[in-house]
Amino acid sequence: MSRWRILQPEPLTPEAFAPFGEVLAEGLAPEDVINDGYTRRFADLARIDVAEADGRPVVHLYRTRPFELPRSLTMMERHPKGSQAFMPTGPGRYVAVVAPAGDPPQPAAIRAFLCDGQGLNLRRGTWHHPMMPLDGPLGFLVIERGADDDNCDVIALPTDAVVVGR
Amino acid sequence: MSRWRILQPEPLTPEAFAPFGEVLAEGLAPEDVINDGYTRRFADLARIDVAEADGRPVVHLYRTRPFELPRSLTMMERHPKGSQAFMPTGPGRYVAVVAPAGDPPQPAAIRAFLCDGQGLNLRRGTWHHPMMPLDGPLGFLVIERGADDDNCDVIALPTDAVVVGR
Repeated sequence: MSRWRILQPEPLTPEAFAPFGEVLAEGLAPEDVINDGYTRRFADLARIDVAEADGRPVVHLYRTRPFELPRSLTMMERHPKGSQAFMPTGPGRYVAVVAPAGDPPQPAAIRAFLCDGQGLNLRRGTWHHPMMPLDGPLGFLVIERGADDDNCDVIALPTDAVVVGR
Repeated sequence: MSRWRILQPEPLTPEAFAPFGEVLAEGLAPEDVINDGYTRRFADLARIDVAEADGRPVVHLYRTRPFELPRSLTMMERHPKGSQAFMPTGPGRYVAVVAPAGDPPQPAAIRAFLCDGQGLNLRRGTWHHPMMPLDGPLGFLVIERGADDDNCDVIALPTDAVVVGR
């Protein structure tokens, strides 16, 4: 196996992303029509898993600067006690780099997804790099576990994973 | 007091909206810089109050058609067991019509806010009309209480409240 892992972002689909969590997008749940016909609702898209050890759901807004590709990744992190959801608050593509929950990932286990409008809910413990906007600064609404204890593990990656553009 | 309540949407500020819940917008919490300087985080903006009677946080996506002003309102609703947050997933103005939690509102207690990019978290029991996009269809991420029991009261309004444009 090559020492290098070249990550060309994959198209984001619920099936491809299933090992890491859920995709948040219209059309990915049965559609209810509510509000006297004014609203199409796609319900209950994410498993928000934040109750461990007196955790509560908290909501943040992020504003993230764009990343340039190609990009060598130097770290990944995980939140062992809860899920973490990201929903863009405006238009723009971003790359999500993830690896399955469990032991720190081998380079071959790391995957990159190209997101364009969709949100993501990372299952508890899923390794991830900070989201990487491509087109300009991007806002995200984030839903995660709030508590006083520590809930973030960070690992250094060898410069084995390089995200490239198309 | 006039039988008619003309609602000219007010500017949305955290102070003006405080009787009804929280405003979700960048700049409304102390700023943390995370992700090696790439992300400005505005943390813990909303009190997500969904645990009553085994409730859990659920996430929906809405796609709402625009409303034309002036608009007579015929109903309002409330969720007596939990908060409900709305965050736009794209650009566009919308009007939020709200009244304080408690008895069904008198016309004089109803207020309208003009929102442009901000989200809202409605405190448990806050009366509200469905959000009214003005510029075109608008998407929202919604965070509310999920459970099997009923959590929505709807009242008919006399045609006393008319939302007007500026």
